[in-house]
Amino acid sequence: MSDQQSSPLRLGIAGLGTVGAGVVKIVRQKAALLEARSGRAVIVTAVSARNRDKDRGVPLTDYAWEDDPVALATRDDVDVFVELMGGSDGPAKAATEAALSAGKDVVTANKAMLAHHGQALAELAESKGAVLRFEAAVAGGIPIIKTLTESLAGNQIERVMGVMNGTCNYILTRMEDAGLSYDEAFAEADGLGYLEADPNLDVGGIDAGHKLSLIAAIAFGTQVNFDAVELEGIGRVTIEDIRQAADMDYRIKLLGVTRYTRRGLEQTMTPCLVPAASPLGQLQGGTNMVVVEGDQVGQIVLRGAGAGEGPTASAVMGDVMDIARGLRLTTFGQPATTLRAATPAKAAVSAPYYLRMALQDKPGALAKVATVLGEAGVSIDRMRQYSHEDASAPVLIVTHKTTRSALDHALAALPATGVMATDPVALRIEKV
Amino acid sequence: MSDQQSSPLRLGIAGLGTVGAGVVKIVRQKAALLEARSGRAVIVTAVSARNRDKDRGVPLTDYAWEDDPVALATRDDVDVFVELMGGSDGPAKAATEAALSAGKDVVTANKAMLAHHGQALAELAESKGAVLRFEAAVAGGIPIIKTLTESLAGNQIERVMGVMNGTCNYILTRMEDAGLSYDEAFAEADGLGYLEADPNLDVGGIDAGHKLSLIAAIAFGTQVNFDAVELEGIGRVTIEDIRQAADMDYRIKLLGVTRYTRRGLEQTMTPCLVPAASPLGQLQGGTNMVVVEGDQVGQIVLRGAGAGEGPTASAVMGDVMDIARGLRLTTFGQPATTLRAATPAKAAVSAPYYLRMALQDKPGALAKVATVLGEAGVSIDRMRQYSHEDASAPVLIVTHKTTRSALDHALAALPATGVMATDPVALRIEKV
Repeated sequence: MSDQQSSPLRLGIAGLGTVGAGVVKIVRQKAALLEARSGRAVIVTAVSARNRDKDRGVPLTDYAWEDDPVALATRDDVDVFVELMGGSDGPAKAATEAALSAGKDVVTANKAMLAHHGQALAELAESKGAVLRFEAAVAGGIPIIKTLTESLAGNQIERVMGVMNGTCNYILTRMEDAGLSYDEAFAEADGLGYLEADPNLDVGGIDAGHKLSLIAAIAFGTQVNFDAVELEGIGRVTIEDIRQAADMDYRIKLLGVTRYTRRGLEQTMTPCLVPAASPLGQLQGGTNMVVVEGDQVGQIVLRGAGAGEGPTASAVMGDVMDIARGLRLTTFGQPATTLRAATPAKAAVSAPYYLRMALQDKPGALAKVATVLGEAGVSIDRMRQYSHEDASAPVLIVTHKTTRSALDHALAALPATGVMATDPVALRIEKV
Repeated sequence: MSDQQSSPLRLGIAGLGTVGAGVVKIVRQKAALLEARSGRAVIVTAVSARNRDKDRGVPLTDYAWEDDPVALATRDDVDVFVELMGGSDGPAKAATEAALSAGKDVVTANKAMLAHHGQALAELAESKGAVLRFEAAVAGGIPIIKTLTESLAGNQIERVMGVMNGTCNYILTRMEDAGLSYDEAFAEADGLGYLEADPNLDVGGIDAGHKLSLIAAIAFGTQVNFDAVELEGIGRVTIEDIRQAADMDYRIKLLGVTRYTRRGLEQTMTPCLVPAASPLGQLQGGTNMVVVEGDQVGQIVLRGAGAGEGPTASAVMGDVMDIARGLRLTTFGQPATTLRAATPAKAAVSAPYYLRMALQDKPGALAKVATVLGEAGVSIDRMRQYSHEDASAPVLIVTHKTTRSALDHALAALPATGVMATDPVALRIEKV
């Protein structure tokens, strides 16, 4: 054991919301356990937050206070800068860069910052011999980053799928269980405080898309490319879609899927139909799940709380303890300078799709739709037209396997038929 | 990066069954991927097995051959001894000791060896500055050892549960799905080659008990104590038990449970009833699942293949890649000399129990049983007596929460009633 490893590991924590306060609590309350496991004391030396006077349920007077997180990040008595402020740019990024530039290790829960600047930050860390780790940024307490980076290092990863936004899964579950409309379920989640200040981060799939882009980088050795994530939120999913899906033994989930094929890197975060009896289909409420498929390991499923003080603080402490034990890993599983800039591939693998549309009540409307689909090369597995009271007729179609580009071709051609009463909703049926 | 880390990591593999051959294949076929991820080449230099002439589907002529695994383990051109022979003693133990004594790192899939000699081997490894890792020994491709040791290092672990013998789960699933008797399902599993040469390792719970004892050591910082695992196999579970459990929305699983309470360390590997709708209850067929509960993270569920060439080789390679990357961990998550010798506690936490018995067809038989239970402090939640054609009457009882010792007291007193036609079957109902 080196001298460095037997001296205390000193944390500087920026951001004292529930997760930051949770990390302080663990360090204070589990000092003996942490030292027994890592062979050295883990202590907090300095903290930073916007409001010094707020009661956070944990004593902070033992620690130096910095108003400026950049000043905190570069203190001589800080070995590891723990970034829990959030925000893709601004103080979080400035302080992370300052810490790494000073050769200090960084542990962060900031998915937005890494989704946008992960490549540059990883390169900076590695050029300085510093470690930048982020288990808490992806699926809370679920150890997906460590599993992908370390446990599965002998695998070619074939696909990673995940339900990684608990708020969306809660809304979809409530729509199904309680028969609520999307708006009602959204209002309920809002009332429970489940939504981000900008709800589109949740229901628009952005937050989950950030996470998926980080997973893809590790899984496939590619540079983080959040801008190439095909994003679609859950706002257009109706109770009717959920019922129709259930009728076919499927459930609708906001599902992230990433694959790397000869055509390039596919990253989609969209509502999908998954078999109701599969682990993903059975996942109810606010829990997260990540499914990894490797050429050796087969399918691994990881399930747990994706957010909250305890689970997120647990993940932060996992990274801190790795550093305390002297485990020094690259940010994305291989040196950042060796990560490939992958070509984005839109839904590279063909799949069946669920389509819902409303047609104007004209003779031959359905035939026109079928013709357009056929001309685009999209063949129909089943089709249902429902009885209706208003002027438009609801139609549900399940296609045979098709490429997303053929489907998009068909969807683009549908308006010219003159029979569409609304824009169609198209949801991929993911084989899981 | 040190000189040591940029030179190739040289493996010596003893045991060339499917897993050993699988490891050789991965090293040969994924050389570029492994080097990109670890920063150094990973190569095989020498191998050993009982039969040199057998075709293992992978070329071995590039490697030195040793008939004696001890000779292999101590070769100058071997950095990591990969022990895939199996057996708790004999050559596996001798070679592992030789490798560790020579300061070489060891990666093993040998649960029996570690369950019996884990403490001594870990102490030997740590005294020599060597690493002894064993992810592949527990639940195949599921990264439970890494998750417990590293990801959850900031948690006090409260309970770990697991279905960790795929053969038992296959037999129980087939009994339920196909209405097979235990003997029929056993014969089917045997025909498919699912059973160990000594089937009692599987159906007697020994193999799964080995795994549980290793998990407990890491979870609670205690010395491995396989002898204290309360073991009960699945041989007495009948189709009737499975149907009765299903009728109450439960499934029967060979479930490992370990907890550490003030009364001591509880380790049980017994058939239990778990809610059919829980992740454990939904686990069908040969798949494994481990559920970890930590005070911070809440409940984490890990699911995947528990055996087979690919999943087990994947886990071996995860450990090898950790070593290639310079991650050096203690065997059980803290120095072996600091692990506590825990007092074994028999089912320390109280639980409801499912009891099945057959009573002689005498007046007052049921009342006598109820009286014995009541005198032992075991109260009855529900009781059913079934119609029957033979001379004994099947009776099912679900108790309220009780301690195992109170229940054992009652079970010991039942024969004196003179009304028991068979020994009762008692299965714990585990809250999951």
